[in-house]
Amino acid sequence: MDYVRDGAEIYRRSFATIRAEADLSGLPDDVARVVVRMIHACGMTDLPKDVRFSADVVTAARSAIKAGAPILCDAKMVASGVTRARLSANNDVLCMLDAPETPGLAKALGTTRSAAAVELWRERIEGAVVAVGNAPTTLFHLFEKLDAGWPKPAAIVGLPVGFIGAAESKDELVRDSRGVPYLTLLGRRGGSAMAVAALNALADPSE
Amino acid sequence: MDYVRDGAEIYRRSFATIRAEADLSGLPDDVARVVVRMIHACGMTDLPKDVRFSADVVTAARSAIKAGAPILCDAKMVASGVTRARLSANNDVLCMLDAPETPGLAKALGTTRSAAAVELWRERIEGAVVAVGNAPTTLFHLFEKLDAGWPKPAAIVGLPVGFIGAAESKDELVRDSRGVPYLTLLGRRGGSAMAVAALNALADPSE
Repeated sequence: MDYVRDGAEIYRRSFATIRAEADLSGLPDDVARVVVRMIHACGMTDLPKDVRFSADVVTAARSAIKAGAPILCDAKMVASGVTRARLSANNDVLCMLDAPETPGLAKALGTTRSAAAVELWRERIEGAVVAVGNAPTTLFHLFEKLDAGWPKPAAIVGLPVGFIGAAESKDELVRDSRGVPYLTLLGRRGGSAMAVAALNALADPSE
Repeated sequence: MDYVRDGAEIYRRSFATIRAEADLSGLPDDVARVVVRMIHACGMTDLPKDVRFSADVVTAARSAIKAGAPILCDAKMVASGVTRARLSANNDVLCMLDAPETPGLAKALGTTRSAAAVELWRERIEGAVVAVGNAPTTLFHLFEKLDAGWPKPAAIVGLPVGFIGAAESKDELVRDSRGVPYLTLLGRRGGSAMAVAALNALADPSE
């Protein structure tokens, strides 16, 4: 069968196709590199129009990761997808969804497990990189904790997906990120693969 | 903040929104339920027009999973995303990408690690459910092995994503699935989250 078998060549041609087709002109270079990788993960070159970000998000997230900050994820798929070889500081990549306390917390707080798991980030949130690739309630709950005085993470990759709360939670992130540098994609699209792609690009710019 | 905190209600409203917006009329009921969950994972209600399938794919995959067939995945994210509580037979969910033999095999065969990992499925492929959520080369390599006489899996969930080979590998799956029931999405879209959604729906129809 006739197909490209060379992994490096597949990457090279993929990124060349993305750069040829996607309109990256509105993005600073460092953000564009992250968005290219997000496009690579989903196959859709129209993402740039929906991307929103703080100008300092790449610098803030990369510095934090290089300095060993933990990466706090809302979903196991996000945590499992991060390429450990790109984390030069051997960072902790944590998802608390399956922690033994989470179901009880969710019940006590009257919220989802994804939101309740945020409570267990308390000791690690300061200076961390937060990655949300699934649940809008994770993002909403984080806003509530920041509003209640929690220390700030270094950056938020806010890419929840879906039909109930996803667009709204990302609109709120853009409206008021609570002083935290952020990267997001407006609307219903997002997801764990896109969040992983963003994290991998933030950790290390190499393609 | 005003948002829905009840997980069951979020699911209910999400699936209701999908069924209200997506045109599922061309799909048999059992396939439609799988596609609804794929839409849920990506936030895009226009998937149905690109979905292709064998009429018996849901029956074949579900029977295999109920009977304890292994689930063979191309990516760790796919394997990590499968909801174990939906696998009543406590099925093995395997990804061989990080097996110690894989890099050497890739070099020897002149192909990607994702394709080389297929070689390590040999003893488990018969009657298995294959899920490809990342690499077109996994799907191409599997075709080559089936053409060379390997025993057949029970079903193929073929959802590689991206720009080089993804659309082509899925076109080939539709053109000639080697007698294996399949479910796929034409074009560049796909990915690990969508593959996981399909697997979870195939394993168990409950929403």
